[in-house]
Amino acid sequence: MSELRYNMITGEWVIIAKERARRPHDFIDPRKKPRQAPPFDPGCAFCPGNEASTQGESLRLPAKGAWKVRVVPNKFPALSPDQEVSHQCQGYQRSISGFGYHEVIIESPAHHLPLARLPLAQLELVLSSYRERMLAFYRDSSVEHVIVFKNHGETAGSSLTHPHSQIVGTPIMPGQVRRRFEHALQYYADSRACVFCTCLEQELAEGARIISQNSSFVGLIPYAALSPFHQWILPRKHSGCFAMISDEELSDLAVLLKDLLSRIDLGLSDPDFNYVVRSLSPSEREVRYFHWYISIVPRITQTAGFELGTGMFVNASLPEESARFLREVPLPP
Amino acid sequence: MSELRYNMITGEWVIIAKERARRPHDFIDPRKKPRQAPPFDPGCAFCPGNEASTQGESLRLPAKGAWKVRVVPNKFPALSPDQEVSHQCQGYQRSISGFGYHEVIIESPAHHLPLARLPLAQLELVLSSYRERMLAFYRDSSVEHVIVFKNHGETAGSSLTHPHSQIVGTPIMPGQVRRRFEHALQYYADSRACVFCTCLEQELAEGARIISQNSSFVGLIPYAALSPFHQWILPRKHSGCFAMISDEELSDLAVLLKDLLSRIDLGLSDPDFNYVVRSLSPSEREVRYFHWYISIVPRITQTAGFELGTGMFVNASLPEESARFLREVPLPP
Repeated sequence: MSELRYNMITGEWVIIAKERARRPHDFIDPRKKPRQAPPFDPGCAFCPGNEASTQGESLRLPAKGAWKVRVVPNKFPALSPDQEVSHQCQGYQRSISGFGYHEVIIESPAHHLPLARLPLAQLELVLSSYRERMLAFYRDSSVEHVIVFKNHGETAGSSLTHPHSQIVGTPIMPGQVRRRFEHALQYYADSRACVFCTCLEQELAEGARIISQNSSFVGLIPYAALSPFHQWILPRKHSGCFAMISDEELSDLAVLLKDLLSRIDLGLSDPDFNYVVRSLSPSEREVRYFHWYISIVPRITQTAGFELGTGMFVNASLPEESARFLREVPLPP
Repeated sequence: MSELRYNMITGEWVIIAKERARRPHDFIDPRKKPRQAPPFDPGCAFCPGNEASTQGESLRLPAKGAWKVRVVPNKFPALSPDQEVSHQCQGYQRSISGFGYHEVIIESPAHHLPLARLPLAQLELVLSSYRERMLAFYRDSSVEHVIVFKNHGETAGSSLTHPHSQIVGTPIMPGQVRRRFEHALQYYADSRACVFCTCLEQELAEGARIISQNSSFVGLIPYAALSPFHQWILPRKHSGCFAMISDEELSDLAVLLKDLLSRIDLGLSDPDFNYVVRSLSPSEREVRYFHWYISIVPRITQTAGFELGTGMFVNASLPEESARFLREVPLPP
């Protein structure tokens, strides 16, 4: 028997298709070959020595000596700061000039090492660069929203091997973000509680969907997970804005992110995946009804016409079973 | 310079990435091999002679003699009518039993012929079966929404070669559908006009994004197309419900659907695609603010973390250029 589960944060129902459900191991693609890349590729614009091929570096960590993380403009930016924000309106059509920021975070000098296999200190630098660039983008008052995301592997939309993340600042609040905000506000109006805090409390009490946790963060499979092994990282501390996290929280986040990515890397043979940091702006850091979080989505199944036509996902896995599977993946010490 | 365009119907912005824009021909995947399938596959459950392997046929056209279209339950249904609708609520969690309908429309006896290459009379039968089953699903008062869709090719989510469409009846109105409804209602409240009628009027006046039209329907690339060659079929007559179309309109729809699918089949070398019929229920057929339509989405580019995190699409093609390209595809007489 299938079950429909409601995602209180997105306002979407997910079909947990128990009739079609597969065991966690069945999601490992046997046709997939291990990724193979050399530690250094002389033709890669992100490898050390080729810094001149990326113009306009906006951040380098550490600031002196050999770099460990670099942030550079995207060579083919979706949006660009080299223009004014201008709005046009003609009949039912609305458009805005393509103002915005689009940068690439080069996660380490190593051409071949995915995030899950980098040392913790390196992950901290990556997260620290997210924080710094998010704050920088929001200092431009023409920026309405900033999104940090990562595409790992070709089916996740990545065309470059060298591990990197991206950060984009847009001149509008995306509709999807506004709707999450509206849902959270409605929940708060109805129950005088943050829906994310309520979710976290109930998930910790139940335990069935928890994967891993530490003193600042909890990693879990959402109750209404939209696809197999879809994960959330929820901060224990209520805050609307990722960029306001303390250094201590940042270290804890690096630990949990490495933990979760290692579990899918080892347990599911390094699948393609995306993750996104869902956050409001620093000016919204104190709102009582919204909570920043990270969503990790392994690209294991294909969306089709049903998802396109309804926005509802059909998930052929049981969130509780996926969480147990990931909890039990043995991690190296 | 990129441009952000607003989709008035979904409330989402699309980035038309002119910096990254490619010419229409560049979207043809040179690695793609032509689909090859025999006219008949003895192992295919949908081929003539194997009718016994699909249980519970709900429609056969024509009713007597050799069938041309059959509708059967999905063998692995996402939802099933064999259970009551029951709602559960526990803390922040909401669930509903997996009640619903999930059927497959076998589009013709031929194992190898895609919809674009079927005779017009056969397309009419397919559309007629959509209409009949949509009406049948809505007669069950536990059904809140019915969606008709097609997955063509593996990247569009189809695992079976024999051409087929699907129809699903859900016990809830999907969030995505509700939001289109809300946006259309807001537009109507603001301007006392149906946003779809306004769009059609303006698009016909401009002409730049029109692909093809006849006396009942217009095929176009939306102003804020979410991906290359994304198309809409808009009925000229205002109506909220697809299932109320007349036989004459149904014939005109078959002509336009075949026209548009042939243009992508021939012009873009038979790409994978999805289409969905976006419609309200018969009880909403007379609402003044909503208009049913068909959305066709070729699977030519990959969505990534940015789309996941914002709901905004980055479209590396110019809608006006895509429309001109498709208009100029020579069709066989």
